[in-house]
Amino acid sequence: MKDQVTVIGVGCTKFGDNFDQSYEDLVVEAAQAAFADAGIEPERIEAAWLGTFSPHAGHGKASVSLGDALRLYGKPISRVENYCATGTDAFRHAAMAVAAGVYDVVLVVGAEKLKDRSVRGLASDGRHPYRDDGLTAPGMFAMAANRYFHQFGGGREALARVAVKNHHNGSLNPKAHFQMRVTEEQVLKAPLVAWPFGLYDCCPTTDGAAAAILCRADLARQFRADPIRVKGIGLAVTSGRPWYDSAFDYVGFEATRAASRQAYRMAGVADPVKEVDLAEVHDCFTWTEITNYEDLGFCGKGEGMRFIGEGRSALGGDLPVNPSGGLKSFGHPIGASGVRMIYEVATQLRGQAGPRQVPGAELGLVHNLGGPGAVACVVLLGQ
Amino acid sequence: MKDQVTVIGVGCTKFGDNFDQSYEDLVVEAAQAAFADAGIEPERIEAAWLGTFSPHAGHGKASVSLGDALRLYGKPISRVENYCATGTDAFRHAAMAVAAGVYDVVLVVGAEKLKDRSVRGLASDGRHPYRDDGLTAPGMFAMAANRYFHQFGGGREALARVAVKNHHNGSLNPKAHFQMRVTEEQVLKAPLVAWPFGLYDCCPTTDGAAAAILCRADLARQFRADPIRVKGIGLAVTSGRPWYDSAFDYVGFEATRAASRQAYRMAGVADPVKEVDLAEVHDCFTWTEITNYEDLGFCGKGEGMRFIGEGRSALGGDLPVNPSGGLKSFGHPIGASGVRMIYEVATQLRGQAGPRQVPGAELGLVHNLGGPGAVACVVLLGQ
Repeated sequence: MKDQVTVIGVGCTKFGDNFDQSYEDLVVEAAQAAFADAGIEPERIEAAWLGTFSPHAGHGKASVSLGDALRLYGKPISRVENYCATGTDAFRHAAMAVAAGVYDVVLVVGAEKLKDRSVRGLASDGRHPYRDDGLTAPGMFAMAANRYFHQFGGGREALARVAVKNHHNGSLNPKAHFQMRVTEEQVLKAPLVAWPFGLYDCCPTTDGAAAAILCRADLARQFRADPIRVKGIGLAVTSGRPWYDSAFDYVGFEATRAASRQAYRMAGVADPVKEVDLAEVHDCFTWTEITNYEDLGFCGKGEGMRFIGEGRSALGGDLPVNPSGGLKSFGHPIGASGVRMIYEVATQLRGQAGPRQVPGAELGLVHNLGGPGAVACVVLLGQ
Repeated sequence: MKDQVTVIGVGCTKFGDNFDQSYEDLVVEAAQAAFADAGIEPERIEAAWLGTFSPHAGHGKASVSLGDALRLYGKPISRVENYCATGTDAFRHAAMAVAAGVYDVVLVVGAEKLKDRSVRGLASDGRHPYRDDGLTAPGMFAMAANRYFHQFGGGREALARVAVKNHHNGSLNPKAHFQMRVTEEQVLKAPLVAWPFGLYDCCPTTDGAAAAILCRADLARQFRADPIRVKGIGLAVTSGRPWYDSAFDYVGFEATRAASRQAYRMAGVADPVKEVDLAEVHDCFTWTEITNYEDLGFCGKGEGMRFIGEGRSALGGDLPVNPSGGLKSFGHPIGASGVRMIYEVATQLRGQAGPRQVPGAELGLVHNLGGPGAVACVVLLGQ
């Protein structure tokens, strides 16, 4: 599939408390921005994918809602769901359909409207051990962070550096949910959510949508001179109950390791630290970003705190991570996040990211984690 | 994509009131039957798809449940959802991934466990006009059936013929939910659900799972001498609110017409009546099967009652429809149904359908309808 599929347009709404926009408003705004960016009419779209988490529990909508919102009738529209990795997996399916030669130009939209109702029970599948046991996402990831500190030393100061960095990046991003900087002291003194996570260690609850238009590589220059190429994609699912699995070491996620191995292999990436110029990774909690550095091969296991401490993942570092602001500051409307990361990496690769631009970016990585911790999707985009 | 992808194994549980089986039990039984049918070990599976409707509302499960049930770890597993067309759309995505050259051997499982809880609100997406207006699936399709009779004449006797045929076929099928024959008199005297539908005009609420193993066509003969080829696939989405759309004529479904056009074009089918040897179609209600005949091009609009009346869709007719017994008698565990239809058509094309065998079947059609009425997926399988 490498180099057979390109991204010719991207769009993204402002993320935030979008009480004045319906789910359909968000979908239309993101898709129309992508149409305009690609310079195409909606009629050119041959098939579409909607990445949204849970329409039938009242969060998000299903395939016909995308068709109705965009008047995209008589065409194939599918919904893909894979927990918090929903957006990237929807993108993956759109890319495979183009690579299969079934369609030339397709649309993927990720969207979620979370602020209109409680997110309690979002990660439930009806008879879910986490919910039954009263476990929440912060609680689960906090257990892992504590184990990580027990094994490798360090503590909340390392987490605070991630929050400070991502809030700084978000302050440069007019579409981010939170655009204010925070200090390490503010982060450490914030109300606790689940030790070691305080308020600024957790991503917010957010509304938003993002869209991308994919095109067969050999047709892409009909639309624009600088299409972005899909270099590699990987998806991996591990046990759905890592937190109950005696083989789980609580210090990282095999799903991320396996998905990134698949993507690196497809793209021919031998050394991600040298070859990847920037990464948008799944920082649902500050600790998750630290373990992601390690699981994605940016550094060894246990070295993530040093990686952030030395400023290597900051804007200006040798491998900027979450220049957008990340889930932490950009927000995390579940199904939208993966497509929003595609939007950011495409924007960076085109050199259009303004004050948060990573100079000379040629290869970017997108990483979504869900399940929780059991599903990871990695996409590599390049020029 | 035509002829690039084959089906090398299929499996299906007994459908019915499977109170003694969990969701995972159903998934494992269907998948292991497919592994045995293909003569492969589960380790050969490179990626998997789960077609299931609504895990996050408590019906079905999500991707990690398939991984856990089958110990399929470290590999890509995705959930695809498209209302009642979920199963066929999951199959479509598996086929496109193989056609893209990303994977050689993949698994698709459709599963749903509906009997453990109420199906009330199943078709809801939170702010759904149908539910808000008190509309149910029988009520909606009944409105269309009444309009159809108003326009073309005929009445409940035509519907009863579908019920009698499909119950007859189901009586020959040891995996069907209902294996008893009914007479036209029994159907007409059954308690009314929503005029003109009586009890025997409505498909039941059912538990079940089905599985298929897909393989690159050029590798298929490593596994078996008689792989089934994917000849054509189509998916179409129309307005999600056809019942409120002033352009909707209430006598058929444009989604089915558009999806079948796509599939016929890919397969090179010019005259479905002459070329298709059997069809498994979405008979959620008896009237739906009649309009499907027309929308799939088996006869003209308004001629469906004559099509069934002349016995053309019966076993022994020139285009047997639902030899399995259909949703009517085999049951309709939402995400499972499309894959179950793939199972039936593959079984027929191999000549292994026993007393319900369609002699000399070489090209079979699968049709799923959902949304309700807004989404249709059509798959053509051949030798």
